[in-house]
Amino acid sequence: MEIDIITLFPEIALAPLGESIIKRAQKAGIVEIRAHNLRDWAEGKHRRVDDYLCGGGQGMLLKPEPIFKAIEELRRENTRVLLMTPQGKQFKQSDARRLAECGDHLIILCGHYEGVDFRVVEQLVDEELSIGDYVLTNGAIAAAVVVDAVVRLLPGALGDARSSEEESFSDPGLLEAPSYTKPIEFRGLKVPDVFLSGHHAKIEAWKREKAIERTKANRPDLLD
Amino acid sequence: MEIDIITLFPEIALAPLGESIIKRAQKAGIVEIRAHNLRDWAEGKHRRVDDYLCGGGQGMLLKPEPIFKAIEELRRENTRVLLMTPQGKQFKQSDARRLAECGDHLIILCGHYEGVDFRVVEQLVDEELSIGDYVLTNGAIAAAVVVDAVVRLLPGALGDARSSEEESFSDPGLLEAPSYTKPIEFRGLKVPDVFLSGHHAKIEAWKREKAIERTKANRPDLLD
Repeated sequence: MEIDIITLFPEIALAPLGESIIKRAQKAGIVEIRAHNLRDWAEGKHRRVDDYLCGGGQGMLLKPEPIFKAIEELRRENTRVLLMTPQGKQFKQSDARRLAECGDHLIILCGHYEGVDFRVVEQLVDEELSIGDYVLTNGAIAAAVVVDAVVRLLPGALGDARSSEEESFSDPGLLEAPSYTKPIEFRGLKVPDVFLSGHHAKIEAWKREKAIERTKANRPDLLD
Repeated sequence: MEIDIITLFPEIALAPLGESIIKRAQKAGIVEIRAHNLRDWAEGKHRRVDDYLCGGGQGMLLKPEPIFKAIEELRRENTRVLLMTPQGKQFKQSDARRLAECGDHLIILCGHYEGVDFRVVEQLVDEELSIGDYVLTNGAIAAAVVVDAVVRLLPGALGDARSSEEESFSDPGLLEAPSYTKPIEFRGLKVPDVFLSGHHAKIEAWKREKAIERTKANRPDLLD
Protein backbone atom coordinates (compact mmCIF):
# COMPACT_ATOMS: atom_id res chain seq x y z
CA MET A 1 0.00 0.00 0.00
CA GLU A 2 1.04 3.60 -0.57
CA ILE A 3 -0.23 6.46 1.57
CA ASP A 4 0.12 10.14 0.66
CA ILE A 5 -0.80 12.60 3.40
CA ILE A 6 -1.51 16.24 2.52
CA THR A 7 -1.16 18.55 5.50
CA LEU A 8 0.33 21.77 6.80
CA PHE A 9 2.26 19.70 9.37
CA PRO A 10 4.00 16.80 7.61
CA GLU A 11 6.16 15.86 10.61
CA ILE A 12 3.12 15.37 12.81
CA ALA A 13 1.44 13.11 10.27
CA LEU A 14 4.58 10.98 10.12
CA ALA A 15 4.64 10.46 13.90
CA PRO A 16 3.63 6.76 13.74
CA LEU A 17 6.73 6.02 11.69
CA GLY A 18 8.64 6.35 14.95
CA GLU A 19 6.94 3.20 16.20
CA SER A 20 8.50 -0.19 15.70
CA ILE A 21 5.62 -1.96 13.93
CA ILE A 22 4.94 0.84 11.45
CA LYS A 23 8.64 1.54 10.93
CA ARG A 24 9.25 -2.15 10.23
CA ALA A 25 6.29 -2.33 7.84
CA GLN A 26 7.72 0.57 5.89
CA LYS A 27 11.21 -0.96 5.82
CA ALA A 28 9.80 -4.30 4.71
CA GLY A 29 8.07 -2.62 1.77
CA ILE A 30 4.58 -3.42 3.09
CA VAL A 31 3.71 0.27 3.00
CA GLU A 32 5.19 3.50 1.75
CA ILE A 33 4.08 6.58 3.65
CA ARG A 34 4.75 10.11 2.40
CA ALA A 35 3.65 13.39 3.93
CA HIS A 36 3.40 16.48 1.74
CA ASN A 37 3.09 20.11 2.72
CA LEU A 38 -0.04 21.59 1.17
CA ARG A 39 1.83 24.87 0.85
CA ASP A 40 3.98 23.29 -1.88
CA TRP A 41 0.93 23.55 -4.17
CA ALA A 42 0.01 27.12 -3.18
CA GLU A 43 0.88 30.06 -5.38
CA GLY A 44 2.24 33.52 -4.88
CA LYS A 45 5.02 34.85 -2.76
CA HIS A 46 3.19 33.96 0.46
CA ARG A 47 1.97 30.54 -0.72
CA ARG A 48 -1.34 31.27 0.88
CA VAL A 49 -3.53 28.23 1.57
CA ASP A 50 -6.43 29.80 3.50
CA ASP A 51 -8.99 32.56 3.11
CA TYR A 52 -12.00 34.07 4.89
CA LEU A 53 -15.34 32.28 5.18
CA CYS A 54 -18.03 33.21 2.68
CA GLY A 55 -21.06 34.68 4.41
CA GLY A 56 -19.09 35.82 7.44
CA GLY A 57 -18.04 33.97 10.57
CA GLN A 58 -14.78 33.74 12.41
CA GLY A 59 -11.83 31.70 11.29
CA MET A 60 -10.23 30.70 8.03
CA LEU A 61 -10.92 27.93 5.54
CA LEU A 62 -8.51 25.99 3.33
CA LYS A 63 -8.84 27.30 -0.23
CA PRO A 64 -9.80 24.93 -3.05
CA GLU A 65 -7.01 25.65 -5.57
CA PRO A 66 -3.96 24.16 -3.80
CA ILE A 67 -5.94 21.09 -2.72
CA PHE A 68 -7.26 20.41 -6.25
CA LYS A 69 -3.71 20.70 -7.58
CA ALA A 70 -2.26 18.44 -4.92
CA ILE A 71 -4.82 15.68 -5.27
CA GLU A 72 -4.79 15.81 -9.07
CA GLU A 73 -1.04 15.42 -9.01
CA LEU A 74 -1.01 12.56 -6.51
CA ARG A 75 -4.05 10.48 -7.37
CA ARG A 76 -4.10 7.45 -9.62
CA GLU A 77 -6.77 5.15 -10.93
CA ASN A 78 -7.57 3.30 -7.71
CA THR A 79 -6.84 6.00 -5.20
CA ARG A 80 -9.17 6.45 -2.25
CA VAL A 81 -9.24 10.03 -0.91
CA LEU A 82 -9.98 10.51 2.79
CA LEU A 83 -10.58 13.83 4.53
CA MET A 84 -9.92 14.06 8.26
CA THR A 85 -12.61 16.34 9.69
CA PRO A 86 -14.78 16.54 12.82
CA GLN A 87 -17.73 16.56 10.37
CA GLY A 88 -16.91 13.04 9.16
CA LYS A 89 -18.21 9.58 9.92
CA GLN A 90 -16.70 8.02 13.01
CA PHE A 91 -13.60 6.04 12.17
CA LYS A 92 -13.85 2.57 13.70
CA GLN A 93 -11.89 -0.67 13.64
CA SER A 94 -14.15 -1.91 10.82
CA ASP A 95 -13.03 1.09 8.73
CA ALA A 96 -9.39 0.33 9.50
CA ARG A 97 -9.99 -3.22 8.27
CA ARG A 98 -11.84 -2.06 5.16
CA LEU A 99 -9.15 0.47 4.25
CA ALA A 100 -6.37 -2.07 4.85
CA GLU A 101 -8.10 -4.35 2.34
CA CYS A 102 -9.38 -1.74 -0.07
CA GLY A 103 -6.51 -1.17 -2.33
CA ASP A 104 -3.13 0.12 -3.00
CA HIS A 105 -3.31 3.89 -2.65
CA LEU A 106 -4.76 6.21 -0.02
CA ILE A 107 -4.59 9.98 -0.02
CA ILE A 108 -5.34 11.49 3.38
CA LEU A 109 -6.19 15.18 3.35
CA CYS A 110 -5.92 16.89 6.73
CA GLY A 111 -8.34 19.64 7.68
CA HIS A 112 -7.11 22.77 9.42
CA TYR A 113 -8.61 26.04 10.66
CA GLU A 114 -12.37 25.89 10.08
CA GLY A 115 -11.94 23.07 7.57
CA VAL A 116 -11.83 22.92 3.76
CA ASP A 117 -13.93 24.58 1.07
CA PHE A 118 -16.87 22.26 0.46
CA ARG A 119 -16.19 22.06 -3.28
CA VAL A 120 -13.19 19.94 -2.33
CA VAL A 121 -15.42 17.57 -0.39
CA GLU A 122 -17.97 17.26 -3.19
CA GLN A 123 -15.52 16.85 -6.05
CA LEU A 124 -12.50 15.05 -4.65
CA VAL A 125 -13.18 13.33 -1.36
CA ASP A 126 -14.39 9.72 -1.16
CA GLU A 127 -15.00 9.73 2.58
CA GLU A 128 -14.95 12.20 5.44
CA LEU A 129 -13.64 10.62 8.64
CA SER A 130 -13.53 11.74 12.26
CA ILE A 131 -11.41 9.93 14.85
CA GLY A 132 -13.61 11.06 17.74
CA ASP A 133 -15.85 13.72 19.24
CA TYR A 134 -13.19 16.21 20.22
CA VAL A 135 -11.57 19.19 18.54
CA LEU A 136 -7.91 19.02 17.49
CA THR A 137 -5.69 21.89 16.36
CA ASN A 138 -5.41 20.22 12.96
CA GLY A 139 -6.03 16.98 11.11
CA ALA A 140 -2.43 15.77 11.01
CA ILE A 141 -2.67 13.90 14.31
CA ALA A 142 -5.95 12.38 13.13
CA ALA A 143 -4.21 11.20 9.96
CA ALA A 144 -1.46 9.66 12.09
CA VAL A 145 -4.12 7.73 14.01
CA VAL A 146 -5.68 6.37 10.81
CA VAL A 147 -2.29 5.46 9.32
CA ASP A 148 -1.31 3.61 12.48
CA ALA A 149 -4.60 1.70 12.73
CA VAL A 150 -4.62 0.73 9.04
CA VAL A 151 -0.97 -0.14 8.55
CA ARG A 152 -0.79 -2.55 11.49
CA LEU A 153 -3.55 -4.58 9.77
CA LEU A 154 -1.70 -4.94 6.46
CA PRO A 155 -0.60 -8.53 5.81
CA GLY A 156 2.80 -9.10 7.41
CA ALA A 157 2.85 -5.90 9.46
CA LEU A 158 2.47 -7.55 12.85
CA GLY A 159 5.77 -9.34 13.04
CA ASP A 160 5.16 -11.79 15.83
CA ALA A 161 2.59 -14.50 16.34
CA ARG A 162 0.03 -12.03 17.62
CA SER A 163 -3.06 -12.11 15.56
CA SER A 164 -4.79 -8.81 15.11
CA GLU A 165 -8.04 -10.77 15.05
CA GLU A 166 -8.13 -11.34 18.76
CA GLU A 167 -7.87 -7.82 19.97
CA SER A 168 -10.33 -5.34 21.37
CA PHE A 169 -13.01 -4.20 18.93
CA SER A 170 -12.13 -6.93 16.49
CA ASP A 171 -15.30 -8.49 17.61
CA PRO A 172 -16.95 -8.89 20.83
CA GLY A 173 -18.90 -5.92 22.05
CA LEU A 174 -17.11 -6.33 25.37
CA LEU A 175 -14.01 -4.65 26.71
CA GLU A 176 -11.18 -6.94 27.74
CA ALA A 177 -10.92 -8.28 31.26
CA PRO A 178 -8.14 -7.02 33.55
CA SER A 179 -4.88 -8.85 32.92
CA TYR A 180 -1.83 -9.51 35.02
CA THR A 181 1.79 -10.43 34.63
CA LYS A 182 4.69 -11.21 36.95
CA PRO A 183 5.53 -10.71 39.74
CA ILE A 184 2.69 -12.75 41.25
CA GLU A 185 3.01 -10.62 44.34
CA PHE A 186 4.12 -7.00 44.17
CA ARG A 187 4.18 -4.90 47.35
CA GLY A 188 1.57 -7.15 48.87
CA LEU A 189 -0.70 -6.85 45.82
CA LYS A 190 -1.40 -10.33 44.47
CA VAL A 191 -2.56 -11.54 41.11
CA PRO A 192 -6.11 -12.97 41.59
CA ASP A 193 -6.01 -16.57 42.82
CA VAL A 194 -7.86 -17.93 39.80
CA PHE A 195 -4.82 -17.28 37.60
CA LEU A 196 -2.73 -19.54 39.81
CA SER A 197 -5.26 -22.37 39.65
CA GLY A 198 -4.19 -23.46 36.18
CA HIS A 199 -7.88 -24.19 35.62
CA HIS A 200 -8.58 -22.74 32.18
CA ALA A 201 -12.36 -22.89 32.29
CA LYS A 202 -12.35 -21.03 35.60
CA ILE A 203 -9.97 -18.42 34.23
CA GLU A 204 -12.23 -17.90 31.21
CA ALA A 205 -15.31 -17.58 33.40
CA TRP A 206 -13.55 -15.05 35.63
CA LYS A 207 -12.41 -13.06 32.59
CA ARG A 208 -15.89 -12.97 31.14
CA GLU A 209 -17.40 -11.77 34.39
CA LYS A 210 -14.77 -9.04 34.75
CA ALA A 211 -15.10 -8.03 31.10
CA ILE A 212 -18.82 -7.47 31.61
CA GLU A 213 -18.18 -5.45 34.79
CA ARG A 214 -15.61 -3.30 33.04
CA THR A 215 -17.82 -2.73 30.02
CA LYS A 216 -20.71 -1.70 32.28
CA ALA A 217 -18.45 0.76 34.08
CA ASN A 218 -16.56 2.27 31.13
CA ARG A 219 -18.63 1.63 28.01
CA PRO A 220 -22.28 0.95 28.82
CA ASP A 221 -23.03 2.03 25.22
CA LEU A 222 -21.49 -1.23 23.95
CA LEU A 223 -24.14 -3.21 25.84
CA ASP A 224 -27.14 -1.33 24.40
CA MET B 1 -0.35 23.23 33.32
CA GLU B 2 2.36 20.56 33.29
CA ILE B 3 1.98 17.27 31.44
CA ASP B 4 4.24 14.26 31.91
CA ILE B 5 3.80 11.45 29.42
CA ILE B 6 5.16 7.98 30.19
CA THR B 7 5.62 5.87 27.06
CA LEU B 8 7.95 3.62 25.13
CA PHE B 9 7.83 6.15 22.27
CA PRO B 10 8.46 9.64 23.63
CA GLU B 11 8.92 11.25 20.19
CA ILE B 12 5.47 10.10 19.07
CA ALA B 13 3.80 11.51 22.15
CA LEU B 14 5.49 14.85 21.50
CA ALA B 15 4.15 15.07 17.93
CA PRO B 16 1.64 17.87 18.67
CA LEU B 17 4.50 20.11 19.74
CA GLY B 18 5.26 20.47 16.04
CA GLU B 19 2.01 22.37 15.58
CA SER B 20 1.88 26.14 15.86
CA ILE B 21 -0.79 26.49 18.56
CA ILE B 22 0.69 23.90 20.91
CA LYS B 23 4.24 25.03 20.23
CA ARG B 24 3.27 28.62 20.99
CA ALA B 25 1.43 27.59 24.18
CA GLN B 26 4.56 25.84 25.38
CA LYS B 27 6.79 28.83 24.50
CA ALA B 28 4.38 31.20 26.23
CA GLY B 29 4.63 29.14 29.42
CA ILE B 30 0.96 28.12 29.29
CA VAL B 31 1.95 24.46 29.36
CA GLU B 32 5.07 22.39 29.86
CA ILE B 33 5.00 19.00 28.15
CA ARG B 34 7.56 16.31 28.86
CA ALA B 35 7.71 12.77 27.49
CA HIS B 36 9.59 10.11 29.39
CA ASN B 37 10.71 6.68 28.29
CA LEU B 38 9.26 4.04 30.60
CA ARG B 39 12.45 2.05 30.08
CA ASP B 40 14.33 4.64 32.16
CA TRP B 41 12.62 3.18 35.25
CA ALA B 42 13.20 -0.47 34.30
CA GLU B 43 15.94 -2.49 35.91
CA GLY B 44 18.53 -4.96 34.78
CA LYS B 45 20.82 -5.00 31.80
CA HIS B 46 17.92 -5.31 29.38
CA ARG B 47 15.67 -2.77 31.12
CA ARG B 48 12.76 -5.07 30.56
CA VAL B 49 9.30 -3.46 30.77
CA ASP B 50 7.05 -6.35 29.71
CA ASP B 51 6.31 -9.94 30.65
CA TYR B 52 3.96 -12.81 29.75
CA LEU B 53 0.28 -12.80 30.62
CA CYS B 54 -0.78 -14.69 33.73
CA GLY B 55 -3.15 -17.53 32.88
CA GLY B 56 -1.89 -17.84 29.33
CA GLY B 57 -2.83 -15.98 26.19
CA GLN B 58 -0.78 -14.38 23.46
CA GLY B 59 1.06 -11.13 23.80
CA MET B 60 2.92 -9.27 26.50
CA LEU B 61 1.83 -6.95 29.27
CA LEU B 62 3.60 -3.94 30.77
CA LYS B 63 5.01 -4.97 34.17
CA PRO B 64 3.98 -3.12 37.31
CA GLU B 65 7.39 -2.27 38.82
CA PRO B 66 8.70 0.35 36.34
CA ILE B 67 5.30 2.04 36.14
CA PHE B 68 4.95 2.31 39.92
CA LYS B 69 8.45 3.80 40.09
CA ALA B 70 7.81 6.26 37.29
CA ILE B 71 4.49 7.53 38.62
CA GLU B 72 5.73 7.72 42.21
CA GLU B 73 8.66 9.81 41.05
CA LEU B 74 6.60 12.16 38.87
CA ARG B 75 3.36 12.67 40.78
CA ARG B 76 2.60 15.48 43.17
CA GLU B 77 -0.30 16.35 45.40
CA ASN B 78 -2.80 17.38 42.72
CA THR B 79 -1.69 15.14 39.91
CA ARG B 80 -4.32 13.43 37.77
CA VAL B 81 -3.11 10.13 36.25
CA LEU B 82 -4.64 9.08 32.92
CA LEU B 83 -4.12 5.73 31.21
CA MET B 84 -4.58 5.57 27.44
CA THR B 85 -6.21 2.20 26.71
CA PRO B 86 -8.87 0.78 24.39
CA GLN B 87 -10.58 -0.42 27.61
CA GLY B 88 -11.16 3.15 28.78
CA LYS B 89 -14.08 5.53 28.71
CA GLN B 90 -14.49 7.38 25.43
CA PHE B 91 -12.56 10.64 25.44
CA LYS B 92 -14.84 13.49 24.34
CA GLN B 93 -14.68 17.25 24.05
CA SER B 94 -16.29 17.51 27.51
CA ASP B 95 -13.32 15.54 28.92
CA ALA B 96 -10.87 17.83 27.15
CA ARG B 97 -12.64 20.79 28.76
CA ARG B 98 -12.72 19.14 32.18
CA LEU B 99 -9.03 18.22 32.05
CA ALA B 100 -8.08 21.70 30.83
CA GLU B 101 -9.80 23.12 33.91
CA CYS B 102 -8.94 20.41 36.38
CA GLY B 103 -5.62 21.45 37.62
CA ASP B 104 -1.98 21.88 37.15
CA HIS B 105 -0.49 18.45 36.57
CA LEU B 106 -1.44 15.52 34.34
CA ILE B 107 0.47 12.27 34.01
CA ILE B 108 -0.49 10.33 30.89
CA LEU B 109 0.52 6.69 30.89
CA CYS B 110 0.51 5.03 27.46
CA GLY B 111 -0.51 1.41 27.07
CA HIS B 112 1.43 -0.91 24.81
CA TYR B 113 1.32 -4.59 23.86
CA GLU B 114 -1.71 -6.16 25.56
CA GLY B 115 -1.88 -3.28 28.02
CA VAL B 116 -0.72 -2.82 31.62
CA ASP B 117 -0.87 -5.02 34.67
CA PHE B 118 -4.21 -4.31 36.32
CA ARG B 119 -2.61 -3.53 39.69
CA VAL B 120 -1.37 -0.33 38.04
CA VAL B 121 -4.92 0.57 37.05
CA GLU B 122 -6.34 -0.12 40.49
CA GLN B 123 -3.64 1.59 42.50
CA LEU B 124 -2.37 4.48 40.41
CA VAL B 125 -4.74 5.43 37.62
CA ASP B 126 -7.48 8.04 38.07
CA GLU B 127 -9.11 7.46 34.71
CA GLU B 128 -8.79 5.08 31.78
CA LEU B 129 -9.40 6.86 28.46
CA SER B 130 -9.89 5.63 24.91
CA ILE B 131 -9.75 8.03 21.95
CA GLY B 132 -11.94 5.78 19.77
CA ASP B 133 -13.03 2.28 18.82
CA TYR B 134 -9.96 1.22 16.90
CA VAL B 135 -6.71 -0.53 17.77
CA LEU B 136 -3.43 1.40 17.68
CA THR B 137 0.08 -0.02 17.87
CA ASN B 138 0.59 1.87 21.12
CA GLY B 139 -0.87 4.56 23.33
CA ALA B 140 1.60 7.31 22.44
CA ILE B 141 -0.47 8.60 19.52
CA ALA B 142 -3.55 8.51 21.74
CA ALA B 143 -1.67 10.60 24.32
CA ALA B 144 -0.75 13.06 21.57
CA VAL B 145 -4.44 13.40 20.69
CA VAL B 146 -5.40 14.12 24.32
CA VAL B 147 -2.55 16.61 24.78
CA ASP B 148 -3.55 18.46 21.61
CA ALA B 149 -7.25 18.60 22.52
CA VAL B 150 -6.59 19.73 26.10
CA VAL B 151 -3.80 22.24 25.53
CA ARG B 152 -5.65 24.22 22.87
CA LEU B 153 -8.37 24.87 25.49
CA LEU B 154 -6.00 26.29 28.11
CA PRO B 155 -6.56 30.02 28.65
CA GLY B 156 -4.47 31.97 26.16
CA ALA B 157 -3.56 29.02 23.94
CA LEU B 158 -5.66 30.04 20.95
CA GLY B 159 -3.80 33.14 19.93
CA ASP B 160 -6.30 34.79 17.63
CA ALA B 161 -9.85 35.95 18.16
CA ARG B 162 -11.24 32.48 17.53
CA SER B 163 -13.25 31.29 20.45
CA SER B 164 -12.99 27.61 21.14
CA GLU B 165 -16.59 27.81 22.33
CA GLU B 166 -18.04 28.03 18.86
CA GLU B 167 -16.55 24.96 17.36
CA SER B 168 -17.89 21.52 16.60
CA PHE B 169 -18.90 19.47 19.63
CA SER B 170 -18.68 22.48 21.91
CA ASP B 171 -22.39 22.24 21.93
CA PRO B 172 -24.93 21.62 19.39
CA GLY B 173 -25.53 17.97 18.59
CA LEU B 174 -25.23 18.91 14.92
CA LEU B 175 -22.27 18.77 12.58
CA GLU B 176 -21.28 22.02 10.93
CA ALA B 177 -22.76 23.05 7.61
CA PRO B 178 -20.58 23.06 4.48
CA SER B 179 -18.50 26.20 4.26
CA TYR B 180 -16.90 28.07 1.37
CA THR B 181 -14.19 30.57 0.72
CA LYS B 182 -12.85 32.44 -2.30
CA PRO B 183 -12.75 32.18 -5.25
CA ILE B 184 -16.52 32.56 -5.66
CA GLU B 185 -16.22 30.58 -8.87
CA PHE B 186 -13.56 27.91 -9.31
CA ARG B 187 -13.50 25.85 -12.51
CA GLY B 188 -17.19 26.50 -13.00
CA LEU B 189 -18.01 25.42 -9.43
CA LYS B 190 -19.79 28.26 -7.68
CA VAL B 191 -20.31 29.06 -4.03
CA PRO B 192 -24.06 28.64 -3.30
CA ASP B 193 -26.02 31.78 -4.21
CA VAL B 194 -27.27 32.33 -0.69
CA PHE B 195 -23.77 33.35 0.42
CA LEU B 196 -23.76 36.16 -2.13
CA SER B 197 -27.13 37.47 -0.99
CA GLY B 198 -25.70 39.21 2.07
CA HIS B 199 -28.94 38.17 3.79
CA HIS B 200 -27.79 36.85 7.15
CA ALA B 201 -31.05 35.22 8.20
CA LYS B 202 -31.19 33.33 4.89
CA ILE B 203 -27.58 32.21 5.29
CA GLU B 204 -28.30 30.96 8.81
CA ALA B 205 -31.39 29.09 7.63
CA TRP B 206 -29.41 27.48 4.78
CA LYS B 207 -26.63 26.48 7.17
CA ARG B 208 -29.04 24.90 9.60
CA GLU B 209 -30.73 22.89 6.86
CA LYS B 210 -27.39 21.66 5.52
CA ALA B 211 -26.09 20.92 9.01
CA ILE B 212 -29.08 18.67 9.61
CA GLU B 213 -28.57 16.93 6.24
CA ARG B 214 -24.91 16.35 6.95
CA THR B 215 -25.57 15.06 10.44
CA LYS B 216 -28.18 12.64 9.08
CA ALA B 217 -25.68 11.37 6.52
CA ASN B 218 -22.52 11.14 8.63
CA ARG B 219 -23.62 10.99 12.26
CA PRO B 220 -27.20 9.83 12.66
CA ASP B 221 -26.24 8.80 16.22
CA LEU B 222 -26.09 12.50 17.20
CA LEU B 223 -29.78 12.87 16.36
CA ASP B 224 -30.98 9.94 18.49
